[in-house]
Amino acid sequence: MSLELHPDRLLPADPTVRDIARELYASVAGLPIISPHGHVPAQWIAEDTAFRDPTSLLITPDHYLTRLLHASGVDLAELGVGTELTPEGSRRAFRLLCEHWRVFRGTPMRYWFESQLVEVFGAYLEPSATSADALYDRISSWIGQPTSRPRALMREFGIEFLATTDDPCEDLAHHRAIARDDGFAPRVVPTFRPDTYLEPARPTWVAAVDRLAAVSGTDTGDYAGWVTAMEDRRAYFREHGAVSTDHSHRDLGTERLPDREAEQLYAAARAGRISAADGDRLRRHMVDEMARMATEDGLTMTLHPAVHRNHHGPTSDRFGADVGADIPLGVEVTQALSPLLNRYGTHPNLTLVVFTIDETVYSRELAPLAGFYPSLRIGVPWWFLDAPDAIRRFRAAVTESAGFTRTSGFIDDTRAFLSIPARHDMSRRLDCAHLAELVAQHRLGIDEAAETARYLVTDQPRDVFGI
Amino acid sequence: MSLELHPDRLLPADPTVRDIARELYASVAGLPIISPHGHVPAQWIAEDTAFRDPTSLLITPDHYLTRLLHASGVDLAELGVGTELTPEGSRRAFRLLCEHWRVFRGTPMRYWFESQLVEVFGAYLEPSATSADALYDRISSWIGQPTSRPRALMREFGIEFLATTDDPCEDLAHHRAIARDDGFAPRVVPTFRPDTYLEPARPTWVAAVDRLAAVSGTDTGDYAGWVTAMEDRRAYFREHGAVSTDHSHRDLGTERLPDREAEQLYAAARAGRISAADGDRLRRHMVDEMARMATEDGLTMTLHPAVHRNHHGPTSDRFGADVGADIPLGVEVTQALSPLLNRYGTHPNLTLVVFTIDETVYSRELAPLAGFYPSLRIGVPWWFLDAPDAIRRFRAAVTESAGFTRTSGFIDDTRAFLSIPARHDMSRRLDCAHLAELVAQHRLGIDEAAETARYLVTDQPRDVFGI
Amino acid sequence: MSLELHPDRLLPADPTVRDIARELYASVAGLPIISPHGHVPAQWIAEDTAFRDPTSLLITPDHYLTRLLHASGVDLAELGVGTELTPEGSRRAFRLLCEHWRVFRGTPMRYWFESQLVEVFGAYLEPSATSADALYDRISSWIGQPTSRPRALMREFGIEFLATTDDPCEDLAHHRAIARDDGFAPRVVPTFRPDTYLEPARPTWVAAVDRLAAVSGTDTGDYAGWVTAMEDRRAYFREHGAVSTDHSHRDLGTERLPDREAEQLYAAARAGRISAADGDRLRRHMVDEMARMATEDGLTMTLHPAVHRNHHGPTSDRFGADVGADIPLGVEVTQALSPLLNRYGTHPNLTLVVFTIDETVYSRELAPLAGFYPSLRIGVPWWFLDAPDAIRRFRAAVTESAGFTRTSGFIDDTRAFLSIPARHDMSRRLDCAHLAELVAQHRLGIDEAAETARYLVTDQPRDVFGI
Repeated sequence: MSLELHPDRLLPADPTVRDIARELYASVAGLPIISPHGHVPAQWIAEDTAFRDPTSLLITPDHYLTRLLHASGVDLAELGVGTELTPEGSRRAFRLLCEHWRVFRGTPMRYWFESQLVEVFGAYLEPSATSADALYDRISSWIGQPTSRPRALMREFGIEFLATTDDPCEDLAHHRAIARDDGFAPRVVPTFRPDTYLEPARPTWVAAVDRLAAVSGTDTGDYAGWVTAMEDRRAYFREHGAVSTDHSHRDLGTERLPDREAEQLYAAARAGRISAADGDRLRRHMVDEMARMATEDGLTMTLHPAVHRNHHGPTSDRFGADVGADIPLGVEVTQALSPLLNRYGTHPNLTLVVFTIDETVYSRELAPLAGFYPSLRIGVPWWFLDAPDAIRRFRAAVTESAGFTRTSGFIDDTRAFLSIPARHDMSRRLDCAHLAELVAQHRLGIDEAAETARYLVTDQPRDVFGI
Repeated sequence: MSLELHPDRLLPADPTVRDIARELYASVAGLPIISPHGHVPAQWIAEDTAFRDPTSLLITPDHYLTRLLHASGVDLAELGVGTELTPEGSRRAFRLLCEHWRVFRGTPMRYWFESQLVEVFGAYLEPSATSADALYDRISSWIGQPTSRPRALMREFGIEFLATTDDPCEDLAHHRAIARDDGFAPRVVPTFRPDTYLEPARPTWVAAVDRLAAVSGTDTGDYAGWVTAMEDRRAYFREHGAVSTDHSHRDLGTERLPDREAEQLYAAARAGRISAADGDRLRRHMVDEMARMATEDGLTMTLHPAVHRNHHGPTSDRFGADVGADIPLGVEVTQALSPLLNRYGTHPNLTLVVFTIDETVYSRELAPLAGFYPSLRIGVPWWFLDAPDAIRRFRAAVTESAGFTRTSGFIDDTRAFLSIPARHDMSRRLDCAHLAELVAQHRLGIDEAAETARYLVTDQPRDVFGI
Repeated sequence: MSLELHPDRLLPADPTVRDIARELYASVAGLPIISPHGHVPAQWIAEDTAFRDPTSLLITPDHYLTRLLHASGVDLAELGVGTELTPEGSRRAFRLLCEHWRVFRGTPMRYWFESQLVEVFGAYLEPSATSADALYDRISSWIGQPTSRPRALMREFGIEFLATTDDPCEDLAHHRAIARDDGFAPRVVPTFRPDTYLEPARPTWVAAVDRLAAVSGTDTGDYAGWVTAMEDRRAYFREHGAVSTDHSHRDLGTERLPDREAEQLYAAARAGRISAADGDRLRRHMVDEMARMATEDGLTMTLHPAVHRNHHGPTSDRFGADVGADIPLGVEVTQALSPLLNRYGTHPNLTLVVFTIDETVYSRELAPLAGFYPSLRIGVPWWFLDAPDAIRRFRAAVTESAGFTRTSGFIDDTRAFLSIPARHDMSRRLDCAHLAELVAQHRLGIDEAAETARYLVTDQPRDVFGI
């Protein structure tokens, strides 16, 4: 079966609306890509690593794909998760994906993958048992070309800015190497992701905070030391170009403890004697501390809350984290963020972006909050919601209370490097579709819609992430 | 006012999308009906009972209709609820429905009812005060015909498979009688619905478990006995063709208690001394036990949680249960099912179908869970949500994370026998409408959409319910 | 940039659906306005006050506008909030709004404001830095005309009925003055809003209840006195034309305490020694008491629950309440209203209207409840949800379970007097859009749709509010 990408894909079916959407989309389709949050390894770009094979490039690291194959009865190990595949195993894994292609109907995974087949690999074949080997060979041969290295691709994709996600103790050597290279124009910057250091009741916390002491040269034996060490590492990240910090905890709770209490809880945690409940309280205080630091150093603060990580114990025992077994939880925003917003919600130096995988808070909490607090922005749809219908629901849910200026700009949040253009393109198409509906219903002028479409892919991310 | 059913009803208005939807629908409209969960009495089919009168056939048992009439000021007793109507009372009840016909505008009750008028009774008259008697007479005369008996209707409707809902202590004599009759092709099977036996803190529980002992010939004096008796009755149901068990409790909680604790709580319950909280804990353990049994006997397990039953005390005091006063509650899935899914979520023999009347969990919890766990399927919209706009929202909410293969296939879940064709037809039209939108937006090929439409009404329910 | 209002604004883009919607809308566009709940000061109408200047008329009191300007970095004081602006300050505030006009794209605030510019002021200029002064001058000169007084406007707008919102201790002199004037046809009536008197744990409660005693001439030293005083004031409001009471508390909880316990809690509250939790319990009992009174005096009871008032402490310290810093909370209805509905849910004399800013309860709780209880009506979208897409979601969410007859009829709930026609017009357009979709999908006949459209703006509000 031949594979084609229709030029009007994702645009509304109604001819009047489609014409408007097409016109809007044409004006933003070719704009450069700004990617302020994602998970591409900096090492790839620093070393301009050649990709190894189609499976380890496209399937194994992409939990969007592996999870639905797992639900369809495929063992994660067969896809290379947690193991090194032989060349034959890699081919077999790719075939498994192709044989199960129908389970992806109606999903964005299919959309992104087929976009890559056509636009990156020039492979005009729909995945199937029959086409699997031909596709595999085609991609393998593409991988072997010099123009298929990360740096060439960043240029080809028009990626001007790319943020990675990094542990606060990272040396950031790869980022330094990239920055030193004057011949490579795109900016590749780290993101400060300190989750581990903010969960004092986790068994791994004491070792993490010891590591933090070693790296920062600050004694983290008491809370004041932890604060200094964190400030030190944030400064280090800023020197390496970081524009934001990212935080993912089970709830959005924030709380400012009295100094003395924070110190006592910290001491208990260092001694390995903190309860889960007190660990949560200290963590909420630490999140507040991070916001306080952000008001001083200007790093944008992004929150990705309310995920039940590693929902299936046997899978995480066997394969570790980030393999597709993380499941969303309901989230509460209004009360949880109240302490933090009361302290910093109007601070001119703070930009706080809240993402959610619980759609119910878009119209109920996030849009009303971001429609009042200058410091708060509504994160675009993230994970599970980064898909056409969900993105349309997002704009419909938040715009009426918060307009367009209170959102975050698109972030792709992806480990799948080659899907970055397709993801940004999808977002542009859908925002234009939404704007076109407004124009067709005479709620917005066409010129305003065009200006807004452009703003959403240019000024908005630059503004929100201080780029 | 004359009544007509438009051939394009429920299909999208846009001409391009409608053409695609019409083509898809044409390819599935005539397929046989598989009804793996519902509430038709087996006795009707076993004895091929003639229906009595229009009201007791169409109104009295249908709480969808009676509830909205009640909200509009009609006393349930006038509709035959909890009482035997005289012939004159029956006619008066039918007239009440017709006089209130406008309150059903925009509801599926109207849609199903008018479908029956035209397609079952050949009555081309819109219900109203004026038409009430003519309609009543027309349906009465239809009832008198030999072709209006349940068996003839099952054949005419193309119902190949029909599951009833039954108490574990049922003798299933009617199912035996139907199965023995070689001249009657459709399969009519029981469903194991053990709720009463899984609520140890309810006042009726001790007597229920005594009954269970008597029927199964197993002493249910201790927990092990309860387990054996349950296994025995499940086996009995399987021998009579059952393909699934159905469970409806106030929450989705599951928990595996230590054996000793389960035994102790059970003993307390037998002695009538269990607290409500401990009753919930033991019930959650028993639900886990049911899943364990399902991994052994292969019965599909369906969950219909989170209903506040008999919300209005005075109504249930006067009329009993299932008269329209049950109201949905919010539900939590991710944490509640975690223990069960950790134990059996990848078991090849388990199929667990979770229904919800809280739409918020479709995109947030059910689709992400079913997109990872092979054992889990997302139940199609149930009760209150089994309506055109809600069904469209359902597909839009779950498909992007879970595709089409992780849903349950349509179930009609109805007591209203004559509405079964209209309900299945509605589902087919709406799934085709959804698929047509995907085709029109170039997110799916027309051939794939046609294959998917067919899959959803044939292989999917067969697969999910092991038919 | 010239500003025009398209005659088809807000109608669906599809030509078939739009034609139907246009026809439906034409039949209701000119009907008089019934406004059973809002916040226009009675004094304006009693004294036929001339408006002062464009800013104090259109911006300062409208927290929909000021909140999004605040989020965009404008200080509320610059908009006249909490301060008296000089003429120059007023002009500057108006300019600030115009300069920030783009932040309102896609919001109803923009829609209402532009509607007023064209339809009230005849100002065909889009707000911008360039047009700000011209607009300001145009509106200033409009204000100076005798036809721009409240009474003339009410006639011009076709407002037949207007309810204000008033403290139970109000003398209602303005309402008396209006009623006495035989030359002024529209009815302007008070609404009994007793929130302050139902929050026994609030610091302001004791003084409020003392005031209540003084005004009603009833000793409020014990609970029985409170009840009598409340009944007295309700009677006073009814004599002044009131048709409803309005209630806004943090949750929807209702509870009937034993008399003795209510008295004890009341005594503790009078002594200033009630806990927050007991204050909530007594408040829930008092809400139940209000429903009981409603069954006797027939005042419709409206509930506007679950708002986190004054979310930002520094803002309320500086500017007070109602300046845009109120944020929605999640709400639970099924269990919360169960006690009240068990007592009064079928009482022929009670009409209870529940509004929500948590959309999730529309399909899950409110529509199922209103589809059973004759006393309960679903409030139309309120605050944050009183916008085109949200209103469309509302109808789609509730109609399938509850039809059209179980909703409240439109209320504008606004302080922005001049926006009343645009708000009612928006509602009519959107209801017609919804009905047109049903017609186009052959779910409703055109005649029924037309009758329903008319019903929603005429008989429904009259019926629900006993007008």
